[in-house]
Amino acid sequence: MSKLSCPQAWRLYVVTDENLSKGRSHVEVARRAILGGADVIQLRDKTAPSGELYRIAVALKKLCLDTKVPLIINDRLDIALAVDADGLHVGQDDMPASVARRLLGPGKLLGVSTETPEEALLAEKEGADYIGVGPIFEARGTKADAGSPKGTIMISPIREKCRLPIVAIGGIKSGNARSVLEAGATSVAVVSDIVAADDIERAARGIKALLI
Amino acid sequence: MSKLSCPQAWRLYVVTDENLSKGRSHVEVARRAILGGADVIQLRDKTAPSGELYRIAVALKKLCLDTKVPLIINDRLDIALAVDADGLHVGQDDMPASVARRLLGPGKLLGVSTETPEEALLAEKEGADYIGVGPIFEARGTKADAGSPKGTIMISPIREKCRLPIVAIGGIKSGNARSVLEAGATSVAVVSDIVAADDIERAARGIKALLI
Repeated sequence: MSKLSCPQAWRLYVVTDENLSKGRSHVEVARRAILGGADVIQLRDKTAPSGELYRIAVALKKLCLDTKVPLIINDRLDIALAVDADGLHVGQDDMPASVARRLLGPGKLLGVSTETPEEALLAEKEGADYIGVGPIFEARGTKADAGSPKGTIMISPIREKCRLPIVAIGGIKSGNARSVLEAGATSVAVVSDIVAADDIERAARGIKALLI
Repeated sequence: MSKLSCPQAWRLYVVTDENLSKGRSHVEVARRAILGGADVIQLRDKTAPSGELYRIAVALKKLCLDTKVPLIINDRLDIALAVDADGLHVGQDDMPASVARRLLGPGKLLGVSTETPEEALLAEKEGADYIGVGPIFEARGTKADAGSPKGTIMISPIREKCRLPIVAIGGIKSGNARSVLEAGATSVAVVSDIVAADDIERAARGIKALLI
């Protein structure tokens, strides 16, 4: 995996979500986000049948290979393995991180969603390469299963206890992205503010400029 | 894998479905079906979050190990790998069989749902160990994505072209199970007639008796 693929080097992490993308496909959203500077793409789709999800992931993998941007698959280890994605991201309601780590093998990235220092430490122990931390702010209709937002104040207790790179998530946009990094996050995951933007590339570029 | 685990030796294949089970869990349904003579259990759950599905599969795997009955996971290769299930069953809307075969490895069983000789031959070529054939009869609210039932007449053209064991599925119950074997199926997959029965063990035993 190239240096660019390391979670330590990521700043803008874009999560694709067709529910928010105004009819644009995962691949189209990802293509434009990458043009705007996304450092990593996560495919998140909780509703597509497995065959369709596989075909979407195959297309995303090609795009990500061509553009040298890592591709992370949300939840579905089967799809991550099937398309040889760069990694998997699991939430607290998904397969245990320790099981995912074992099945993924050492050459792939594993991200784990966490809300507390205890969850972060467990994720680290179970073999996570980075942790998601959130929800930071109120998000626009993205994660029905996310808890209530706790603000950037939730980052530093985790930062102090856990050495892993932190990808902050939840309602992050141009107006607050900088504050998230200042609170100790390594990078920011953006969903609706990019995916639902009329001009995805421009939205991504605007946020990316605030992060470097 | 023991001799009992071979698809050639199966007669009664029970698919668990919590939507039909009147509040009984996958594990409870499987336990009673096995007591009644089920030769193989398939876990099918298209709605549970991955973490819950994993926990269900762990419990089913323990039951199946204890009772020496093979466990097949529907659709979800990740769950099959995570619990070291005996196999995976994929439909035409799931991950391609060839990809599933590669990721499963040679020591596991792969089943593929088919409706035509062409699909059956492709499944055989892609590494299936058995094929599902159906829907044979009208089923009670089980598979929303299944086509219209074609009767036992659909079995013999597939039987003539494809050497794989055939697990017939779709509306099979005590009144028609025997006719399905006579048409060329190796075994019958039963869902609602067992899973929704008041006495699951008795229902399974009744159908099993017709198949041996």
